[in-house]
Amino acid sequence: MTEQTRFILNETDLPKYWYNLNADNPIPPAPILNPQTMEPVTPDFLSVLFPMELIMQEITTDRYIEIPEAVRDVYKLWRPTPLLRARRLELALDTPAHIYYKHEGVSPPGSHKPNTAVAQAYYNKISGTEAMTTETGAGQWGSALSFGCNIFEIPLEVYMVKVSYTQKPYRRIMIETYGADVYASPSDRTNFGRSILAQDPDTPGSLGIAISEAVEVAATSEGKKKYSLGSVLNHVLMHQTVVGEEALKQMDLAGEYPDVVIGCVGGGSNYAGLAYPFMRYKFTEGKNTRFVAVEPTACPTLTRGTYTFDYGDTAKMAPIVKMHTLGHSFIPAPIHAGGLRLHGMAPSLSALVDGGYMEAVAVHQLTTFEAAVQFARAEGIIPAPETAHAIRVAIDEALDAKEKGEERIILFNMSGHGHFDMTAYLHYYSGNLEDYEYPQAAIEAAMADLPQVSL
Amino acid sequence: MTEQTRFILNETDLPKYWYNLNADNPIPPAPILNPQTMEPVTPDFLSVLFPMELIMQEITTDRYIEIPEAVRDVYKLWRPTPLLRARRLELALDTPAHIYYKHEGVSPPGSHKPNTAVAQAYYNKISGTEAMTTETGAGQWGSALSFGCNIFEIPLEVYMVKVSYTQKPYRRIMIETYGADVYASPSDRTNFGRSILAQDPDTPGSLGIAISEAVEVAATSEGKKKYSLGSVLNHVLMHQTVVGEEALKQMDLAGEYPDVVIGCVGGGSNYAGLAYPFMRYKFTEGKNTRFVAVEPTACPTLTRGTYTFDYGDTAKMAPIVKMHTLGHSFIPAPIHAGGLRLHGMAPSLSALVDGGYMEAVAVHQLTTFEAAVQFARAEGIIPAPETAHAIRVAIDEALDAKEKGEERIILFNMSGHGHFDMTAYLHYYSGNLEDYEYPQAAIEAAMADLPQVSL
Repeated sequence: MTEQTRFILNETDLPKYWYNLNADNPIPPAPILNPQTMEPVTPDFLSVLFPMELIMQEITTDRYIEIPEAVRDVYKLWRPTPLLRARRLELALDTPAHIYYKHEGVSPPGSHKPNTAVAQAYYNKISGTEAMTTETGAGQWGSALSFGCNIFEIPLEVYMVKVSYTQKPYRRIMIETYGADVYASPSDRTNFGRSILAQDPDTPGSLGIAISEAVEVAATSEGKKKYSLGSVLNHVLMHQTVVGEEALKQMDLAGEYPDVVIGCVGGGSNYAGLAYPFMRYKFTEGKNTRFVAVEPTACPTLTRGTYTFDYGDTAKMAPIVKMHTLGHSFIPAPIHAGGLRLHGMAPSLSALVDGGYMEAVAVHQLTTFEAAVQFARAEGIIPAPETAHAIRVAIDEALDAKEKGEERIILFNMSGHGHFDMTAYLHYYSGNLEDYEYPQAAIEAAMADLPQVSL
Repeated sequence: MTEQTRFILNETDLPKYWYNLNADNPIPPAPILNPQTMEPVTPDFLSVLFPMELIMQEITTDRYIEIPEAVRDVYKLWRPTPLLRARRLELALDTPAHIYYKHEGVSPPGSHKPNTAVAQAYYNKISGTEAMTTETGAGQWGSALSFGCNIFEIPLEVYMVKVSYTQKPYRRIMIETYGADVYASPSDRTNFGRSILAQDPDTPGSLGIAISEAVEVAATSEGKKKYSLGSVLNHVLMHQTVVGEEALKQMDLAGEYPDVVIGCVGGGSNYAGLAYPFMRYKFTEGKNTRFVAVEPTACPTLTRGTYTFDYGDTAKMAPIVKMHTLGHSFIPAPIHAGGLRLHGMAPSLSALVDGGYMEAVAVHQLTTFEAAVQFARAEGIIPAPETAHAIRVAIDEALDAKEKGEERIILFNMSGHGHFDMTAYLHYYSGNLEDYEYPQAAIEAAMADLPQVSL
């Protein structure tokens, strides 16, 4: 083991541009629809929720968007992140494959999320936004946006799914450390929250409900407050491409190019961030790279959902987009990978899967924890349960390469650490974790409630 | 804010040697004494607990000890660690001082501890040790040694102070993830543990008791099991000097040299690791650097303890060393900085304080959390409560420099992150934290039970 383990970039190598896949994607993006009229939205409609610069980033087909110096300056607190070759894991698997991982868990909040949180806070700041709202499930996104809003001195309200607010207080304390206000959702602060509480005061809440509350607060603030989403939308995924742009340079340092690029997907942003800069060379240079998006069997959006127009939230207030969906009233099984429990998926990523440019695979919960522990013992890092989905498939690829005697080059996104998920590991060791197969009947029922879109 | 923030070294810059302060320290080290005979120990006596290579490192006066390639290879999983200039903190404080911090929180277990854990596991492995034992308080050391023992495939028993085992399960789960066995101490696995339980079945335990149990298991294993200590001893501090050796190169990259080097001290290892390579130039080149060791007022070993010979553990089985001590039967107040609650201090560091080469200062708990939150909001990283002690004094130095209009260069060790300490932050926000002043009567009482040493 004398070859290089870590591939490090200097501050001067920090990317100066985000990459916009819409410039090269052969599949044109479907329009975003107004949830009331079912007609394509105007920038004016979106401007109730988002500052104009982000709306322009959402619809542009420019290939490269310059990263503002103020954003790069914050990135420098933890970026460029390391790329590591998982030599010890390769040894443990006795595989001829080379396994690389991009370590996004080194950011202060512990995942890739601040790549867009910092950018969104910055654009809101220069647009005069007085306060921001968002939702969070287990708290990764909430802690990232509170980190970003704190830096640019914007007050933030976070609507946190009630069951997480109560049972997983540590991310909430992190959010509060960065200075944001956190409310258990459903809350009595919104009409939608109050209506849910009237039906069921003991509801555990859901991400769809929390999104509705955060959207309602922004939409009814007379332009003072803006809403922020941590995944799904084009501009969010684009901000994450710093991950892949760095990884391209680091694979160069390693003298290799990936045969397969892997990531876990909830809304799709961490995986798009790593994959899209490599996807560019599939489209522009005909590179033969495989792309594998990994989701939980408990939330099989890409593998069993329908590719169609659906609402982004439970209350049908958020815009309608064309995506793989399990239905906007989806209620997830209680798997520990909270960040992967969204009913929808990024439209651009859905289109790539639908167009055959990207593979999708669903994995069970227990086997992801098995992979997580194997990774932790080999490489030291304890991954987030979400990230463990990518690790599972990276290991499976390495074992497949071994069986076939191939020196396959595997790259995956180590999207976050599991320091706030140790209870999940405890449940795994105690034998208290289950596998969940999402019921076919629920999928069919959800399809009955889709918006009636004539496009 | 366009100047450089992070100073990064490549894998090829990873130090090849540890630095041994005993080669340059004008104060000769006091002998280590056998707790039964009160006479200087022989290597044979120590060999019941430690492998011979570590015993030789404990007593050598060689200036540099080569780091084995197998150890460097594991270090490469996270080293060299970044050095950062805290530009945002400087701005927040409006100080002309330059504040630098060495970020040891990026290691897989989250602190500087694996620097010695990996080395100790390696030397035990090549010496044929069949299993290892150790103690841990809140779990930083236990998780680091389980990480190291897992890499070199040595079974490990960790005796974890019972109150932490019960109330802070997350580090325990991390230890188990790396494959070690964890027992609440006092346990029924040792004579000493059983004797304590017979007196008080509900005892919360203490670090002194846990050390005694781990030492007893090794000492009664007929040479099969060895014991490992995470701080205090010379070889442990020496393994930590990779921190300071890297920081020297990184300060060079920054084009500055520290006027003051700061660290928190429990047993002294993280601070010695950063400070001793700089102390070398105080001794060999007459550099005028100030060195400030920071401890809690609740455990004021250096500022109010006695510099004398004392036992390393409660059961009086561990060797006797000359150090600043609050007495081996010390029972700490329940401050959250668990790693700083030791009755003793590294002998070499005690000698430097006694000799006037190093300053010592004690700070209260509440003011350390205030500093921690200020640091987190400026720099993003949420520090461990132990590390917050160093941050408190770094901020105080920066404010003092501001008052005096000095461009003071400040360097401190960011020894670990606080991801497993969020409950402490919650208590701080809730107003449930207290300051503790260690009672003078307890200090005087402890001095009555010192070993009768005639040196």
